[in-house]
Amino acid sequence: MKIGLAGAGLIGGSLALALRGAHDLRVYDADAATREAARRAGLDTVDTLAAVLPADAVVVATPLTDVVATLAALVDRADGAVLVDVASLRAPVNAYAERAPSRARIVGAHPMAGSTASGFAAADAELFRDRPFLVVPTARSDDRAMAVAGDIARAAGGRVAVLSASVHDAAMGRLSALPLAVAAATTHVAAEGDLAPAGPGFRDTTRLAATPVDLAVELLLGNADAAAAEITKVVRELDRVAAALRDGDRAFLREYLRAARDVRRSLDERP
Amino acid sequence: MKIGLAGAGLIGGSLALALRGAHDLRVYDADAATREAARRAGLDTVDTLAAVLPADAVVVATPLTDVVATLAALVDRADGAVLVDVASLRAPVNAYAERAPSRARIVGAHPMAGSTASGFAAADAELFRDRPFLVVPTARSDDRAMAVAGDIARAAGGRVAVLSASVHDAAMGRLSALPLAVAAATTHVAAEGDLAPAGPGFRDTTRLAATPVDLAVELLLGNADAAAAEITKVVRELDRVAAALRDGDRAFLREYLRAARDVRRSLDERP
Repeated sequence: MKIGLAGAGLIGGSLALALRGAHDLRVYDADAATREAARRAGLDTVDTLAAVLPADAVVVATPLTDVVATLAALVDRADGAVLVDVASLRAPVNAYAERAPSRARIVGAHPMAGSTASGFAAADAELFRDRPFLVVPTARSDDRAMAVAGDIARAAGGRVAVLSASVHDAAMGRLSALPLAVAAATTHVAAEGDLAPAGPGFRDTTRLAATPVDLAVELLLGNADAAAAEITKVVRELDRVAAALRDGDRAFLREYLRAARDVRRSLDERP
Repeated sequence: MKIGLAGAGLIGGSLALALRGAHDLRVYDADAATREAARRAGLDTVDTLAAVLPADAVVVATPLTDVVATLAALVDRADGAVLVDVASLRAPVNAYAERAPSRARIVGAHPMAGSTASGFAAADAELFRDRPFLVVPTARSDDRAMAVAGDIARAAGGRVAVLSASVHDAAMGRLSALPLAVAAATTHVAAEGDLAPAGPGFRDTTRLAATPVDLAVELLLGNADAAAAEITKVVRELDRVAAALRDGDRAFLREYLRAARDVRRSLDERP
């Protein structure tokens, strides 16, 4: 496939490194230094967004806040190219797709992978290996668009799952916004004392607090209703735990922790 | 040094693997299969607790609930051996030390390391490499006891810090009980939906929920006041985040997430 790539940060850069060889790639980034880094890494880079076309598909991997504008800039000259965006929230893309020209082909492919690092320097061809890669149709997706998105996700090493936009964004409230909020809140509380004795457990629990601020704000505020609802649920859970501690309710705590352990361990047993 | 080791699970077994070669070790575990596994790994094992003596030091690395009983079983025949226990909560050991014979030498050395795995099969000579190793005096610690505990912690690869028992247990409320409670609560909430799309961020945030149940119950209930207080603080923080989401307060969220990011990244810059 002839694939254009718009955005060569952590996600776009990692996709480029994962897909090269198997596909004919052209890579664009709005930042000249990023383009230069991609070029030095041996990628075929172009100096304008338009030059990623013509292509069978263009992957839009810009920062979340630029995804819709980039799709809009591409859609009139796409000439059949499937526009595949990696946006981690689907509602804004979905709204755009509904008003996009009827010939437009737009589909989401959101990898559940990443790191708190960012930029091409952190890109890694193995970033998506065995990670969920969520293919999410829009009002401008058809069978070919879905197939192209799935092919790209699989070629990058991901495990493809198809979700509707609303199911996707609800899942992100639970699996992305909630742990981010929990990590940030735990960091704020822990920072009231000395962090020098912190071990790997604390570090893992709070790792998402190191997420780049722009992305973190969007993951929460761009999905505000779902995020607030999930945070309210976790507050209720934590209130139950605190009450059990005050009451010395060993039976409750044991059962609560056993159930959480079983769920969490089952997750480790998945591919 | 001639060192006895009582308990060859994850922590004791890892200590044995880390210290052998540099020290003359004798390893005991109450479980015959564990002793056999340690023997097959080339460790010098003994079949009774008493046979770890005579020694310069005995490291007590039993499950948390057995530490005081093991210290009590050793103290009368210790004959000058420093008893070093790795208990992750100091209050019970401290209370015991205050009533122990005046000739007893008891000191805590708690490694901030571990994994959600357990048992000798999970033991790893590198488990303590560059991790905090908290040396905590009791009423039966003297200069020699402190020095012995520090030597053992350093020989295992840890970074030694000396804390009082009360400072230690307060720190564990923030850095151990709190993330454990948060991980378990987040797991319970997330399990209301499909976990298949979970990525590495969710997995890291909830990893501690897979802690063995006995240990998890003790880390919370054995430190109930501190744990409940820290959980109450994190509930307050999460309430602030949820309110900002409902109000669309981008400025608050940006500053909140920026401050958390700065704290969390500073932790990554430490050794």
